Amino acid sequence: MDKLDQVLARIDTDLEAALGRLFALLRIRSISTDPAYAAECRACADWHVADLKTIGFDAVSHATPGHPIVVGHARGGGGPRALFYGHYDVQPVDPLELWDRDPFDPVIETLPDGTKVLRGRGTSDDKGQVMTFVEACRAWKAVTGALPIPMTILLEGEEESGGVNLPPFLKSHAAELRADIGLICDTTMWDPSTPAIQTMLRGLCGEEVFIHAADRDLHSGFYGSAAANPNHVLARIIADLHDAEGRVTLPGFYDGVPELPEALRRQWDSLNFDAAAFLGAVGLFVPAGEKGRSVLEMVWSRPTCEVNGMGGGYQGAGFKTVIPATASAKVSFRLVFDQDPHAIRAAFREFVSSRLPADCRATFAEHGSGRAIRFPIDDPAFARAREALTEEWGKPAVFVGGGGSIPVTHELKQALGMDVILAGFALEDDRIHSPNEKYNLESFRRGIRSWARILDALARG
Amino acid sequence: MDKLDQVLARIDTDLEAALGRLFALLRIRSISTDPAYAAECRACADWHVADLKTIGFDAVSHATPGHPIVVGHARGGGGPRALFYGHYDVQPVDPLELWDRDPFDPVIETLPDGTKVLRGRGTSDDKGQVMTFVEACRAWKAVTGALPIPMTILLEGEEESGGVNLPPFLKSHAAELRADIGLICDTTMWDPSTPAIQTMLRGLCGEEVFIHAADRDLHSGFYGSAAANPNHVLARIIADLHDAEGRVTLPGFYDGVPELPEALRRQWDSLNFDAAAFLGAVGLFVPAGEKGRSVLEMVWSRPTCEVNGMGGGYQGAGFKTVIPATASAKVSFRLVFDQDPHAIRAAFREFVSSRLPADCRATFAEHGSGRAIRFPIDDPAFARAREALTEEWGKPAVFVGGGGSIPVTHELKQALGMDVILAGFALEDDRIHSPNEKYNLESFRRGIRSWARILDALARG
Repeated sequence: MDKLDQVLARIDTDLEAALGRLFALLRIRSISTDPAYAAECRACADWHVADLKTIGFDAVSHATPGHPIVVGHARGGGGPRALFYGHYDVQPVDPLELWDRDPFDPVIETLPDGTKVLRGRGTSDDKGQVMTFVEACRAWKAVTGALPIPMTILLEGEEESGGVNLPPFLKSHAAELRADIGLICDTTMWDPSTPAIQTMLRGLCGEEVFIHAADRDLHSGFYGSAAANPNHVLARIIADLHDAEGRVTLPGFYDGVPELPEALRRQWDSLNFDAAAFLGAVGLFVPAGEKGRSVLEMVWSRPTCEVNGMGGGYQGAGFKTVIPATASAKVSFRLVFDQDPHAIRAAFREFVSSRLPADCRATFAEHGSGRAIRFPIDDPAFARAREALTEEWGKPAVFVGGGGSIPVTHELKQALGMDVILAGFALEDDRIHSPNEKYNLESFRRGIRSWARILDALARG
Repeated sequence: MDKLDQVLARIDTDLEAALGRLFALLRIRSISTDPAYAAECRACADWHVADLKTIGFDAVSHATPGHPIVVGHARGGGGPRALFYGHYDVQPVDPLELWDRDPFDPVIETLPDGTKVLRGRGTSDDKGQVMTFVEACRAWKAVTGALPIPMTILLEGEEESGGVNLPPFLKSHAAELRADIGLICDTTMWDPSTPAIQTMLRGLCGEEVFIHAADRDLHSGFYGSAAANPNHVLARIIADLHDAEGRVTLPGFYDGVPELPEALRRQWDSLNFDAAAFLGAVGLFVPAGEKGRSVLEMVWSRPTCEVNGMGGGYQGAGFKTVIPATASAKVSFRLVFDQDPHAIRAAFREFVSSRLPADCRATFAEHGSGRAIRFPIDDPAFARAREALTEEWGKPAVFVGGGGSIPVTHELKQALGMDVILAGFALEDDRIHSPNEKYNLESFRRGIRSWARILDALARG
């Protein structure tokens, strides 16, 4: 039995213990966007430090103005140095009443079709995925006494909250963090049996806008129609953000957005993406975006504008005849190719300001930004990683576009000159960011095995 | 000293005790729209029953499917029988952080200009106003041993929540409740030194709309633009409700809305209403409503459509890249003249339904309705009440239009054939329905004295 086979066998026999470790991590309520959970975010960082030390990493939790950043280095064979990035923070859990159980009391469930899933906040995004990599390292260490390549693990706690503390940390610790290749496990498979590596990731520009009118809430019976109503003003602005063709109306929004190269379009066509199934899985039937574009284009290569939250006035039970002093919306733009998040933020603010009626003013809050990124998929490291995934899953791994944004990939490129292999084992139905988040047990088990193989492949390269 | 003078003197010497009774009432958190406060609503009704009994009313708290209705009868002189209507429920208190103190811990404050005010939820709307009438009765009873006219007091607990239980109660208790004239104290003075009687009140149609799309919240990074976003759909519908001229776009909305009669317009012009001061008091400067209409028209005689609340997606601290499954809005229409609330509700629902894109559906909840109402201000009872107010305040009382809706006035007319004198002592700056609600101490003291005089005037008529 060669070393890799021993490592893979070890992974399978150690699975129950690995689940125990993951569950301990999942029980820590590390909701980064809510200051009430700051202590649990620190506890989560400390948990990782202690765990990484057991595998021989010299792990440290670095304080930041926000949540801590965990960094651990370990020696390995003579191959390329890898930097693995992950995040230990999770999304908020509201609306809590839609969860079937406590989001932070993880459990293994068996679905009606026999599929076993891990249920709870963070099982998929990103604690479960992070631990696939950590457990692969643990197995290598247990079997061979060392890691196959020299390695750094970097875990942050502000990925879900548009945190601003990682980029300066990367710059100030550049010498310590520099590596030959980046590795991230925060993406999905193509389908439950087909592994995937991302070829591109959309960027993000997050904005929050507040519309202010009167200096207090007013009784609509006394002031109705005479007083500016921020709900009406905000609704008009949101409505104006898209035209009848589903295009975003911000001036200059599509600057730097080319049509898809014909070769890539053909490759994507060959994936036989089932748009009806993609939408049908969440109760939808008709693509809502730009007319004349395929669903795959919409979610992989086209920029978008989504209002993720809006609110103003009385939203409790019953009725209250109030004209609120303020209404607000959280708006995210997904960016592709060469779109500039700063230019788009400026265009949005100008768009809002130019639409304010008399007596209204707008204020803004910035919630993160990152450019889109594309990866050099012809690079030998990418080819070897693809072979390793193909080996584990018995099916060719595919190079795919990406819907979500992982701003750190851009920062890693900019600050450390590093390309990143994004290989993840989440599935589209994992309900990440939603109630009842899950991660398939097979995603976890074969995710660990996949990383064990990729580390081996990189070491041999 | 004639009887009235004795009663007025008694009111002034008893003021401290009257404030003690009002504060006990204000401490009961009777928020009718929130089921969590149902027991406090019951407690509030019981408090009134006990209090009215001390003045010789045979008061009873009647259970309803919602909050109780208090009814008390008292014998009096040979004049017309009066029915006084009031409500013991109050508006919710959110956002709580904008209150300078506990909304249910009332206090007397002295403003920088020396004005004394009662501060707390319900001081003005409507507990303080109700108690001006009750205390006037108490003084008459104390001085003369009886009330000047036979009287019924009716206090409900669902005025602030579009309750549906009063109209059937009025019908089923019509024989017991029938009277010659209705009295209500739930309106404002013209200005702090000028008393007013309402000539008309706008009606109300309250609607809540929910826009549903996917069967769960979605990650906007995966589904953005491909999936219908209820926030966008709702914003478009809200934006479409008004045109660029500030007019409501519901088909048929202005049916039954005549131009103001020239005589009434002249009377209103003679009031020298200061629109700039009215808006300036809340930090506004430019009328937001129908172009070409005066502010007084907007708030007294024109129908309106206001979105009192809207919400969808993540509204907590930070950011969450979610496409919500649902977004919702609470919309109120203020109605004038012969507008039909049921026709307008139907028009709104059709308006929404006709604007739903593929994959979206709408559901609705009804929150109260009432037609506009006009009063026979040439009736002798109205003239006598006006004289009594003029006497107390040393300034001619004015007949004014009305901004708020008091649906019960229509029900009293319909179920009991009764006209209603609406005389209230609240001020425009009382912040009713808002944080830091107040009622001027002088509104309370002279309000009691005003009712004492009105009862006397009615008895003499």
